[in-house]
Amino acid sequence: MIEQTTFPEALKILPLGGLGEIGMNCMILEYQDEILVVDCGLLFSDLEHFGVEFVIPDFTYLIERKDKVKAIIATHGHEDHIGAISFLLKAGINCPVYASSFTTLLLKEKLKEHVHLSATDIRTFKMGETIPFTHFKVTTVSVNHSIVDSAALIIDTPVGKVIHTGDFKIDPTPFYGQTLDKSVFAKAGQEGVLLLMSDSTNVERCEHSMSESIIYQKFEQLFAAAQGLTLVSMFASNVGRMGQVFSLAKKLNKKIALSGRTMEQNVRLGMEAGYLKGAQSQVISLDEIRDYPRNEVIVLSTGSQGEYRSALVRVACGEHRQVKLQAGDTVLMSSKFIPGNERAIGQMINNLFKQGAEVLYESIHDIHVSGHATRPELKQMLELCKPKFFIPIHGEYRHLVHHSKLAAEVGIPVENIVLATSGDVIELTENSCKIVDRLEEGRVLVEGRDGKDISKVILKERRQLGEKGVVFSLMVRNAETRKIIAGPEIITRGLADQATENELVYHAKRLVKKVSDEYDSQVEQGAVDMDLQETIRVELRRYFNAQTGKKPTVLPIVLDL
Amino acid sequence: MIEQTTFPEALKILPLGGLGEIGMNCMILEYQDEILVVDCGLLFSDLEHFGVEFVIPDFTYLIERKDKVKAIIATHGHEDHIGAISFLLKAGINCPVYASSFTTLLLKEKLKEHVHLSATDIRTFKMGETIPFTHFKVTTVSVNHSIVDSAALIIDTPVGKVIHTGDFKIDPTPFYGQTLDKSVFAKAGQEGVLLLMSDSTNVERCEHSMSESIIYQKFEQLFAAAQGLTLVSMFASNVGRMGQVFSLAKKLNKKIALSGRTMEQNVRLGMEAGYLKGAQSQVISLDEIRDYPRNEVIVLSTGSQGEYRSALVRVACGEHRQVKLQAGDTVLMSSKFIPGNERAIGQMINNLFKQGAEVLYESIHDIHVSGHATRPELKQMLELCKPKFFIPIHGEYRHLVHHSKLAAEVGIPVENIVLATSGDVIELTENSCKIVDRLEEGRVLVEGRDGKDISKVILKERRQLGEKGVVFSLMVRNAETRKIIAGPEIITRGLADQATENELVYHAKRLVKKVSDEYDSQVEQGAVDMDLQETIRVELRRYFNAQTGKKPTVLPIVLDL
Repeated sequence: MIEQTTFPEALKILPLGGLGEIGMNCMILEYQDEILVVDCGLLFSDLEHFGVEFVIPDFTYLIERKDKVKAIIATHGHEDHIGAISFLLKAGINCPVYASSFTTLLLKEKLKEHVHLSATDIRTFKMGETIPFTHFKVTTVSVNHSIVDSAALIIDTPVGKVIHTGDFKIDPTPFYGQTLDKSVFAKAGQEGVLLLMSDSTNVERCEHSMSESIIYQKFEQLFAAAQGLTLVSMFASNVGRMGQVFSLAKKLNKKIALSGRTMEQNVRLGMEAGYLKGAQSQVISLDEIRDYPRNEVIVLSTGSQGEYRSALVRVACGEHRQVKLQAGDTVLMSSKFIPGNERAIGQMINNLFKQGAEVLYESIHDIHVSGHATRPELKQMLELCKPKFFIPIHGEYRHLVHHSKLAAEVGIPVENIVLATSGDVIELTENSCKIVDRLEEGRVLVEGRDGKDISKVILKERRQLGEKGVVFSLMVRNAETRKIIAGPEIITRGLADQATENELVYHAKRLVKKVSDEYDSQVEQGAVDMDLQETIRVELRRYFNAQTGKKPTVLPIVLDL
Repeated sequence: MIEQTTFPEALKILPLGGLGEIGMNCMILEYQDEILVVDCGLLFSDLEHFGVEFVIPDFTYLIERKDKVKAIIATHGHEDHIGAISFLLKAGINCPVYASSFTTLLLKEKLKEHVHLSATDIRTFKMGETIPFTHFKVTTVSVNHSIVDSAALIIDTPVGKVIHTGDFKIDPTPFYGQTLDKSVFAKAGQEGVLLLMSDSTNVERCEHSMSESIIYQKFEQLFAAAQGLTLVSMFASNVGRMGQVFSLAKKLNKKIALSGRTMEQNVRLGMEAGYLKGAQSQVISLDEIRDYPRNEVIVLSTGSQGEYRSALVRVACGEHRQVKLQAGDTVLMSSKFIPGNERAIGQMINNLFKQGAEVLYESIHDIHVSGHATRPELKQMLELCKPKFFIPIHGEYRHLVHHSKLAAEVGIPVENIVLATSGDVIELTENSCKIVDRLEEGRVLVEGRDGKDISKVILKERRQLGEKGVVFSLMVRNAETRKIIAGPEIITRGLADQATENELVYHAKRLVKKVSDEYDSQVEQGAVDMDLQETIRVELRRYFNAQTGKKPTVLPIVLDL
């Protein structure tokens, strides 16, 4: 743990998450007695088989300095930017949370599951607004992204101007809002930007990202040509995408049914934030689908990632009560395949085809555009801001490397580019930007409804159990004479099929009996040098390994009576 | 189980695997008393966390008709085509295995781990050779693929000519061998093809697949420009790709070091099959790398899929004894990312970058070409063969759907296209091709060195254990009086951290004690209506669910003494 900066006049920059991984974005800016936290998100886990639901940053550093923390500022409302705020508040950080309109609404929905909403000070900012702190002055700038009301931050600090882009793209024709205002960044560039921290997610893509509005034409063709039901799956937070569907539905005189709880919620919140005007008159319930000609209905659905038991997975398996697909229906998967979900999504697509529907998805149809800037846009951002120092953020390590190289191509001196990862402690002064230290273990695995931590020990135990099964051995010993009076009993789980198990257990019992006989004879001779429990454990592991090629977890109990 | 065809003059076609999944290809052709098995492969599992190493077809149908099985014919040497042959032989099928030269060599390596090689009748065929059986006449045709010596099969049957393409592409300039001879398929088409079964893997791609030889130019540029070590990772079976590396190394006067056991093995087998001429003089050992200027060495490595503990993963983590990367080195990932492996591969690439190396991979550099035909080639195959009936094979369900549509576009009547999945029983006559029945459960999960089956029950137990942990509860009861005389003892595993566990166990014991007191009092009153063990199980699950939001596996024992 870092206790003291080596240089008190420096601005400390500490990414707790999001640098070296895509997800759990969380960036600390610390100057003397003041800390701002930019974003506080979660990462969806690939350890869900072991009960890990998601991963959040380790907040120890903030908890140890809780009085310094003056603000959490959310750049936008995606889970990887706001999903861990409730955990940070519950950990005892008591400071205002700053967020844009739609972000505020999403945040309130999330927080009310976890904390007393009334006790949380959420301050909604307008785009372009400047929020003053003791040492910092934060100006919010509207940017384009796959969720409305996304902001970049221009932060005036005692050492100089720092820009944090948040997630962004440059969309010349967004469906909602204006295109990103380059002049704001250009102006900052002219005034002098000390440090730029910019989104690296799509740095491997070379073509300028496509505009959200190209979806409109594509959807219009597909909706107009529909012979049957049209089901559109997308992220429920993509209000701009929804807006296009509602707009087209109106134009083509179709009704919209909402499938999935968050889809219903976010249509409501979107309206509340001033989008999706008049949507309520277009919405029908899922039960009403059957009252309309099939080709006059569009179902908007969650579940684009093939999430277990999600609405779309149930539709794909023919298990959704109200939405049954048939030949002539079309499913539009209007979202990306998040890495790690490919198999689940692929399986869901196969099953949708089995229902007789036509399924269109990104890899072969242009029905999704990304919300992240690609190389040409990232280059523009670098050229507009002309920063002295550069830190690529929001990306796996390879993305950060590629973004660093791009910055060098644009002319930023290599020594002014800092390739940092989550946990690195960076010091920024007028003349230098460098990694000075590193925090220890920086991530917390979270399970269950209470956000309980899972330690590495528990995870290891679960891996063992899940891969190799468990053997439980039980004996009863006379506490006085120390002689074995009952057992062994042996139970296994996850080890082998019934017939094999019976045979294995039969021999395992004989083995334990042999050990206990040996023990008994030591007891009789009054010279016990055997740790009975441990000997049983070792012998059983050795036996099962010889028989099955695997060492299960062996739990021996010797109960003294 | 199907016992009798409804139509004895029909050819029965029974895909045991590979239709509806990518992997475990296995196709049965049965006519009266004769069965041919085309390919017999395995599928790599995504359940490795639960100890499942791979999946193979259920061979029950063949085992019940073992005397009829006259041949296993391997189209080429990939694991998804030959990997389950050893299991079929061990299951008691005793018939010759037909394979091309390189396939034979790979097969022998695989079989010698499992069966007595001397007892296996492997018959090596030449391309163009015709193998006669009682009812069938099988002619092998050389095709292009990502492994040398790949064959399609033209099978004359009593009902007509059947073509099985195996895996193929049409490469105008393969590195080894000739381009696929279209005239052979055209001739068959003129004679009349009753049924075509064709590879669907790449049906979603619209551009003609790139030639293997384009790799040569790209590699030449990269090898020539190398400042440091060049590491090329690829599938160890891709002898054509290896051949290009060896050829370029000779031209550029570089040495080649082999990393990974199968890489060494397959270079040897490649030479034995007549490829990689003179390779031995170019190879140096991994220990010798340091004896050469760094930019004069190319390391050929396995591990392109980020497999746990593979050579390349160890290099990426800096844990490979002989291969240490540094700045200036280049890693070329010359293989595709198999779906499901993206996260592991991504992590490995990130780690390779952390070693300081430049890493090039398919998504952003042209250093890999696929071995499977894309739409234009698939269309050509359909047009050459002009089949009366068509069954798309080798693909997930969506690929089969797309391939069916392509066949319809080419002019095959929709009613002559059979969209079948593994387990379907198809009958083919001169005038009809239709699914007439379906086998039950068709796949076997395999674990461990002996190829032990894992049943669904065991898998479910392991999932439960791995996700939620396990609780053992133990009591001792007097067998005569039925009174509890010891316990409860409670042990948990994978449930919670030590402190939480202690607290949970403390309360759980009190709960069990309460149950046992109730039981005791029933015993005293002589009116026992409680199943003690079951009551404890139910109560503990309820308790842990209330406390942790999860129901662990609860195993209560009541031991009678």
